[in-house]
Amino acid sequence: MGRHRSSLGTLLHHVHVSGPLTRAALAERMGVNRSTVLALTAELVAAGLVREEHPAATTGAGRPSLLVRPESERVCVLAFDVAVDRLIAARVGLGGPILDRRETVRPRAGADLATVVGNLAALGRELIDAMPPGATCVGVGASYCGMVRPRDGMVRYGPALGWVDQAFGAELAQALGLGLRVAVGNEAHLGARAEYERGAGVGSPDLIYLHGDVGVGGGILVGGKPLGGEGGYAAEVGHMLVNPVDGRPCLCGSAGCLEAETGEYALLAAAGRSDGQIGRDAVRAVLRDAAAGDPVAAAAVAEIGDWLGIGVANLINLFNPGVVIFGGMLRDVYSGAAPQVAARIAEHAMPVSRERAKLRLSGLADDATLLGAADLGFAALLADPLPAAAS
Amino acid sequence: MGRHRSSLGTLLHHVHVSGPLTRAALAERMGVNRSTVLALTAELVAAGLVREEHPAATTGAGRPSLLVRPESERVCVLAFDVAVDRLIAARVGLGGPILDRRETVRPRAGADLATVVGNLAALGRELIDAMPPGATCVGVGASYCGMVRPRDGMVRYGPALGWVDQAFGAELAQALGLGLRVAVGNEAHLGARAEYERGAGVGSPDLIYLHGDVGVGGGILVGGKPLGGEGGYAAEVGHMLVNPVDGRPCLCGSAGCLEAETGEYALLAAAGRSDGQIGRDAVRAVLRDAAAGDPVAAAAVAEIGDWLGIGVANLINLFNPGVVIFGGMLRDVYSGAAPQVAARIAEHAMPVSRERAKLRLSGLADDATLLGAADLGFAALLADPLPAAAS
Repeated sequence: MGRHRSSLGTLLHHVHVSGPLTRAALAERMGVNRSTVLALTAELVAAGLVREEHPAATTGAGRPSLLVRPESERVCVLAFDVAVDRLIAARVGLGGPILDRRETVRPRAGADLATVVGNLAALGRELIDAMPPGATCVGVGASYCGMVRPRDGMVRYGPALGWVDQAFGAELAQALGLGLRVAVGNEAHLGARAEYERGAGVGSPDLIYLHGDVGVGGGILVGGKPLGGEGGYAAEVGHMLVNPVDGRPCLCGSAGCLEAETGEYALLAAAGRSDGQIGRDAVRAVLRDAAAGDPVAAAAVAEIGDWLGIGVANLINLFNPGVVIFGGMLRDVYSGAAPQVAARIAEHAMPVSRERAKLRLSGLADDATLLGAADLGFAALLADPLPAAAS
Repeated sequence: MGRHRSSLGTLLHHVHVSGPLTRAALAERMGVNRSTVLALTAELVAAGLVREEHPAATTGAGRPSLLVRPESERVCVLAFDVAVDRLIAARVGLGGPILDRRETVRPRAGADLATVVGNLAALGRELIDAMPPGATCVGVGASYCGMVRPRDGMVRYGPALGWVDQAFGAELAQALGLGLRVAVGNEAHLGARAEYERGAGVGSPDLIYLHGDVGVGGGILVGGKPLGGEGGYAAEVGHMLVNPVDGRPCLCGSAGCLEAETGEYALLAAAGRSDGQIGRDAVRAVLRDAAAGDPVAAAAVAEIGDWLGIGVANLINLFNPGVVIFGGMLRDVYSGAAPQVAARIAEHAMPVSRERAKLRLSGLADDATLLGAADLGFAALLADPLPAAAS
């Protein structure tokens, strides 16, 4: 029974990540025969999780293999993203489509747990109220820009909002009142997972995802599994010390951290932008000016790129990754500073360590963390698609 | 059949790592009943891999549970250790005892593949010739102080001996002429594994092992599994850039690497030792003088300890480990510079990341890498103790 339920989950995971697949393709990916796929699919169809349909066009001789398609409109989760400057809530269907979405800008100054939870719960209720008849919300996942205890969604440390040991997951679950647990993860951890499943990291199980805005976070996969460490707090890439001599001060209280040298404030300060403009638009303005030949902006981008390159070189030496993915604001920074990053890697990463490491922009762009949160919401369903059959 | 053979290997692995265990303890650790243990043990006894005996003293009521003990004298591997200044060969029994051992000092200047392989093979043959009647060599493992391709034991990069892409594993296997593959691993990777199985890391599946002599290497376990990365070259901790501003030159051609700032040459240079003395005795002399109050030596130890602390802080942020273990020469350095290391960790590692990270001296001392090599030699046997039963 355990093995059977696990096979159901494996099949569902394949169509969740890859979209509609033929029975033949599923049989091959799962290493089972077609009659097994047929039987598993029948159970998932009966449970309303997938449906079968004829492919639009047939190729080759013989009967076409039926397509197994996730019931994306009917089976969904709520996904939340608490970023430094905005709150996002979305309804995401099985298979990954964002079906509905709400977003609010929030002030950067510290917001307390109750305010953030209240705002998120209101967005979540809007999404639930707008759900079409027959749709079911099977889970809730949330992405948070800080250090999160996986087992209960406690935010241990979130300097961007000034949080220490705040029971975010439990409070949000209660405020939503859906009778569902809220699974919470660090934003970059979730971005890494989403990029591996459906973004720039597909096929690269040894993956590093860097997520930048005000802070710089990291999510690392080792052999396709998230690097958690003893408590689930691994990959605090942003607080790797890269500049011990005259480092810029960091939100964490230290100085010279990768985040302090490559985050938004570092770029704006290096570019001499004292006009009070912050956020991604301000970052993009510096990069645009640099590309247009403004020498101060160009020097700032090069300086930030050098530090980013040192950070990436260190990560390549430590993890021998197949791919390093730049997400959030670091997409823009890497796009503008690729030569500096490449030069630092060539200088400081061991040739054997870097010989197969690709550098990529995030494939999911601003949705990476949100889709990672959705995957967290789907995790219980994918682990055991038919819990009623457990007894 | 596959499951049965895997259970045989699991049982054998338990007694290999933990030494003699009662049937009752084995049943509990393996989550099976005693009759299963009885049956598995009978097969392993018949194969000459373990024996059963009555425990010396009995406790409690009822029949004492028989002890299952590895046949350490009869079942052994050859283990080799190629370090920067010496070659070691040993015969290691199932269960881990070093039964016989040969060691030669070698000049530090580059030694070519043929010379090193010739010397090792000669030591290996001595060990085989001295083997008692009835003993069997079931595998060969080797530890190398450089970057090793796991699948064939190719040394991709070994600056200490000046090697690039040298077919060490294949050549040593041929020179030994035992008809056995030689499994080769990086010395710190193997040290990590050995410390986890029978040293200072038992019970800590998220483990970092740092091995220092001239170079500084790292071995990292994630959830009890070795961190390999895309090609098996991960954990090049020694080439993490920690001092980008005025770093000491590194053997790798860069400067400011952790190895350049904390290795033997850095300590001796910082202490102003220009008397030509090198090696562990010279390192210990500096540490002894520092402890005795020599201000130059004390300042040198503190300086090296600061850089070591920065390196460890970065690793704690990245891996959220349960334990960081100092091996090789870094045992001595950490013993002398623990306050500096602790201060840097307090300053640069996130409180949540370090809250459960223990710092430990290697439990296996100079044998860590050699015992890791032995484990590599035993791996095939432990994966499938009765290959003849496969057909």
